[in-house]
Amino acid sequence: MLPISQRGNAMPASPIRKLVPFAEAAKKRGTKVYHLNIGQPDIETPKAVLDAVRHSDFKVLEYSHSAGNESYRKKLVQYYASVGVQVNANQIIVTTGGSEAIQFGFMACLDPGDEVIIPEPFYANYNGFAVAAGVNVVPVTSHIQNGFALPPMAELEAKITQRTKAIVICNPNNPTGYLYSAAEMEQLKQLVLKYNLYLFSDEAYREFCYEGHQTSALHLEGIDDHVVIMDTISKRYSACGGRIGAFVTRNQQVLDAAMKFAQARLSPPSFAQIAGEAAVDLPADYFDTTKAAYKARRDLIVQRLNAMEGVFCPNPGGAFYAMAQLPIDDADRFCQWLLESFSHQGQTVMLAPATGFYGTPGLGKQEVRLAYVLNLDDINAAMDCLEAALKVYPSKI
Amino acid sequence: MLPISQRGNAMPASPIRKLVPFAEAAKKRGTKVYHLNIGQPDIETPKAVLDAVRHSDFKVLEYSHSAGNESYRKKLVQYYASVGVQVNANQIIVTTGGSEAIQFGFMACLDPGDEVIIPEPFYANYNGFAVAAGVNVVPVTSHIQNGFALPPMAELEAKITQRTKAIVICNPNNPTGYLYSAAEMEQLKQLVLKYNLYLFSDEAYREFCYEGHQTSALHLEGIDDHVVIMDTISKRYSACGGRIGAFVTRNQQVLDAAMKFAQARLSPPSFAQIAGEAAVDLPADYFDTTKAAYKARRDLIVQRLNAMEGVFCPNPGGAFYAMAQLPIDDADRFCQWLLESFSHQGQTVMLAPATGFYGTPGLGKQEVRLAYVLNLDDINAAMDCLEAALKVYPSKI
Repeated sequence: MLPISQRGNAMPASPIRKLVPFAEAAKKRGTKVYHLNIGQPDIETPKAVLDAVRHSDFKVLEYSHSAGNESYRKKLVQYYASVGVQVNANQIIVTTGGSEAIQFGFMACLDPGDEVIIPEPFYANYNGFAVAAGVNVVPVTSHIQNGFALPPMAELEAKITQRTKAIVICNPNNPTGYLYSAAEMEQLKQLVLKYNLYLFSDEAYREFCYEGHQTSALHLEGIDDHVVIMDTISKRYSACGGRIGAFVTRNQQVLDAAMKFAQARLSPPSFAQIAGEAAVDLPADYFDTTKAAYKARRDLIVQRLNAMEGVFCPNPGGAFYAMAQLPIDDADRFCQWLLESFSHQGQTVMLAPATGFYGTPGLGKQEVRLAYVLNLDDINAAMDCLEAALKVYPSKI
Repeated sequence: MLPISQRGNAMPASPIRKLVPFAEAAKKRGTKVYHLNIGQPDIETPKAVLDAVRHSDFKVLEYSHSAGNESYRKKLVQYYASVGVQVNANQIIVTTGGSEAIQFGFMACLDPGDEVIIPEPFYANYNGFAVAAGVNVVPVTSHIQNGFALPPMAELEAKITQRTKAIVICNPNNPTGYLYSAAEMEQLKQLVLKYNLYLFSDEAYREFCYEGHQTSALHLEGIDDHVVIMDTISKRYSACGGRIGAFVTRNQQVLDAAMKFAQARLSPPSFAQIAGEAAVDLPADYFDTTKAAYKARRDLIVQRLNAMEGVFCPNPGGAFYAMAQLPIDDADRFCQWLLESFSHQGQTVMLAPATGFYGTPGLGKQEVRLAYVLNLDDINAAMDCLEAALKVYPSKI
């Protein structure tokens, strides 16, 4: 028998995908499943973005520059300026999705055994990228009672050791939808300055803020060397399958190191760079329209959830996720039961158990994440299912 | 000052890209540069492959399955059957280029401190993927005198330690063009069985064999658990920018481990999966035509090189690279000089110094790699430049 690697063993399986076989079995039984479990929006990719690819007329599908096409990076400079972030084209490396931007940051800045502090609950794949890089994730718990606000600085500081190299935030947050305030971002700035840490800021959901404005980590002054932004077009333009993201920093050494990882994998995908470049030229009202659609969904799902007995859902300020506390024994068991043993008028709903988003074992057992990526009718139908389910779930508490 | 990581420091810069500024400067001076330095073919991507993307009519650019679209994986099963490799759709993970397939193999099967044996000269980016994975590359030297045949088994065996976990080959080979014989593949089979090693086989150039047939590592019987194929559509269909590859193995544990890395990065690019799927339906004569074009180029470049005084170029059996020994002091210096200080009728040629392909310091100083990715006229013009250059190069030996 050939051994697989220790990191291959340690690598976490996707906490969401483990429920997929139960969803497939439900569908085979004829049950309609509403997917609120993953961040795959039903909102159409803008036609102009897809058409840019469809109307392309090159003859050879060539490698692009390892940092991405210069024409696209120049467009991204315009995009970032539009959100108040001043960078130049050489401070951007186009990546294969936001995923690769996170990997580049971990690889270029962190060594095996180093620690990164992440407010939990957090995007589960940070665990996977950390295992791949040999890095240890140190969670600091945020709480549903205050909407998952940034934990007090003293709690973050208490986690800092000699091996701490970075703080990772996602803003607005996946899975909580929490939008960090300007004051919280200022606290983080002081912290990374005090302890000489990197601030990795995943800003995939930047455009979707419903209560106030996003403070980008690159808005913070005086910490240029500390900040790396991990970005993606996946959510911004409903272009998840393009696999185009960006690694953005003003730290030249970090750029140089990340570029070596970028060169090793040759280039990001060429087709979707064309899409990304076209997306920057979308009409100015594109985000207004999309944001209005998500806001209506958020308002509906939060209202429906809080109207259910024993359910609490804080109002998320951004992204397209809501976390809800349910009167249940165990979120994993409940989510599986929804697919395996329940239906309401031939329908059920697939949710993400929050346990997969916590680094601390045992947390999140009464919480689920709901991605409001479906239209209002579907959200209502899904909430009807959840409401009915909670009335009959055997292990209700 | 914030430190970058040790692995960020250890990560090798691309040995080819370091010459790019000199090529750019030559072009600015008005010198035409023939690029024989990288494997970017000028052969057009088949129109049917590009049209499949251009005529696509989906509305949302969605994530695909983490293992790639099932429809594409089923097509790949057909493709592999056509080259005598029997696998099923669950034994294939569609990757972001061959690069990611190599990364998945290193990550899933190897731990930091493990060793992989690779015949040198080898594809330079194996170094980068090894550094990213914390793995040590142990080179075994092959020699230009016998066309870079597989080194004797005793030399490979002498390198095996307790930490040796895999042998990596590229067949047909980049950078040497060497096509491993069935007998050599059988020797490798016996070796991996004897020492319980993985055999990672990079088969990016499978379709381009000019002397006999390729023996795929998946043709070898009785070592299913040992073999992982790293594959890509980049060269096969002149689709380098698509960033679509494949990780193929019959070892279920390795598939399970690799899938966790695949899930963490969500999915491979969607547009180019459409291209890859269409490519499997190309007419049966597609590879005949393409191969004939490369063979004519190979015949020309080898003939031209061997006709130059003091130059030796073994006849490569596959891929689209030739290695040549030149009567020069230092390949890096010579290649830079070609761009910086030489021109012939307003033209020059860019080559890859072979030093970047050797793991053993000091080797390859009189060798260069030539990618015959240009048409016959351009190859002739490039060889005119090289011939003229060798007559006047100041450090000729």
